[in-house]
Amino acid sequence: MFTGLSAFPLTPLHHDALDEPAFIGLVERLVAAGVDSITALGSTGSYAYLDRDERARVARAAVAHAGDVPVFVGIGATRTSQVLAHAEAAQEAGAAGLLLAPVSYQPLTEDDVFELFRAVTSHSSVPVVVYDNPRTTRFTFTTELYARIAALQGIASIKVPGVPADPEAARAHVQQIRAVLPPEVTIGVSGDAHAADGLLAGCDAWYSVIAGTLPEAALRIVRAAQSSPAQARAESERLAPLWDLFARHGGGIRVMAAVAEQLGLAQESSLPLPLLGLTEDHRAEVARVIAGLDVEQ
Amino acid sequence: MFTGLSAFPLTPLHHDALDEPAFIGLVERLVAAGVDSITALGSTGSYAYLDRDERARVARAAVAHAGDVPVFVGIGATRTSQVLAHAEAAQEAGAAGLLLAPVSYQPLTEDDVFELFRAVTSHSSVPVVVYDNPRTTRFTFTTELYARIAALQGIASIKVPGVPADPEAARAHVQQIRAVLPPEVTIGVSGDAHAADGLLAGCDAWYSVIAGTLPEAALRIVRAAQSSPAQARAESERLAPLWDLFARHGGGIRVMAAVAEQLGLAQESSLPLPLLGLTEDHRAEVARVIAGLDVEQ
Repeated sequence: MFTGLSAFPLTPLHHDALDEPAFIGLVERLVAAGVDSITALGSTGSYAYLDRDERARVARAAVAHAGDVPVFVGIGATRTSQVLAHAEAAQEAGAAGLLLAPVSYQPLTEDDVFELFRAVTSHSSVPVVVYDNPRTTRFTFTTELYARIAALQGIASIKVPGVPADPEAARAHVQQIRAVLPPEVTIGVSGDAHAADGLLAGCDAWYSVIAGTLPEAALRIVRAAQSSPAQARAESERLAPLWDLFARHGGGIRVMAAVAEQLGLAQESSLPLPLLGLTEDHRAEVARVIAGLDVEQ
Repeated sequence: MFTGLSAFPLTPLHHDALDEPAFIGLVERLVAAGVDSITALGSTGSYAYLDRDERARVARAAVAHAGDVPVFVGIGATRTSQVLAHAEAAQEAGAAGLLLAPVSYQPLTEDDVFELFRAVTSHSSVPVVVYDNPRTTRFTFTTELYARIAALQGIASIKVPGVPADPEAARAHVQQIRAVLPPEVTIGVSGDAHAADGLLAGCDAWYSVIAGTLPEAALRIVRAAQSSPAQARAESERLAPLWDLFARHGGGIRVMAAVAEQLGLAQESSLPLPLLGLTEDHRAEVARVIAGLDVEQ
């Protein structure tokens, strides 16, 4: 279940309230495209900005509209007891898995993070994905900590932040992680610009920002990776203008919100403030890039 | 009001619930010591881990037990609408000022942060302290952004993260910030190890972690800074073993929690999980340092 393409939809807001119809529209779009799983309330899904009630509503809406596609739900929060409450609500909503990043305010130690995952796995009856996202959490996992956490009963997958660009280095990097994990624990790459490299280097899954809004463009990379490395790289290279926008705007969320607004999948100003949307100039650039890519509308 | 020593008390927990008697005990200790202000729900006060109801209770308890000492209240959160709700609750509780850090999950832009402060100052009737804490927020203010924000009606003070160790460099640093601020906006130093340097370099205030638990040790530095630079430096140097512990344990919160637990001012495991308290070995070291310092018990 924790293999292939997991699509991370935005959680669009409108006037600072959940835009549930827009969110449901995104989920239905992902189901229609044929993604392997949907991860609601990932970083791109603004989980860190939403309160308990909003998160529960998003989880329920995702499960209700995902059909047979398994739904994973992000449960991160600064405090362990809040994480456990989100985990419980996600399971009640029907989540098939939980995604947990070590969200921090005060810098965390390895022991803090290990005990957090131990608490969550021992309180949950569905599998947990370890979400390594140093850009947003400022916590850097070591391979040793992957090993300690992956040995916990209930850990299903590790979402790693990226792989080296060089194919041999990428393969060695993935193998080094694989070597310390139980065989049933999968490795998923994130950092969309590195997804093709990660899949070709042996990652089992792609936890994907772009797939949340443009699932077909992402699926082309995933399918090509299974048969033709050169084609997978070409499909990723085709999206280079998008990866460039991600790099220039602090990651994918602002760019993908602009794309979704541009395509009519979300209303204007769909991000939670204080995150301002892109400026008019940057939106025009996004529109040009999307038009030039011949991606699904 | 935003000058002198502002003490940042811990918000002790017990079994993951507010330990209100312990918090009130800390507030009363600060009042008795004669600090110039109390900042409840600073970083050391775990604001980033507490929900809306807990924060409102802490703010009310602080004001109720602070007597004539002005109470400032931290209102930071990832989402602007949550910040505004905390601001309203703090004002209802009787806060004399609000402390706001640009708490982030997704990296913030300068415009995001400016608009956040604009929203808060335009919705609040009490002054706002700009809380520059890159260690916890990962946002780095520029001097230009200090200037833009300080020009907003309602900004009272800038809490800067530290000053260079060299006295001339420190003075130049503070003067460079002072030059862009309206004359009524004060500059307060944080980073306790640099407090003496900051005060001697011209900072108007010290926003102090240590003062939240050991106010007299902090007051000695502040008083000496007004008359004798050498004595202020000596008073700070005397606390070097404590600054060393701060540096080794990711800032002050874990060390001060251990000190408060050691002194019977908080119960065991007073920090919000996932923040583990110090190990037994490190607690023993804290106890030795405190015993050697001849600070108030």
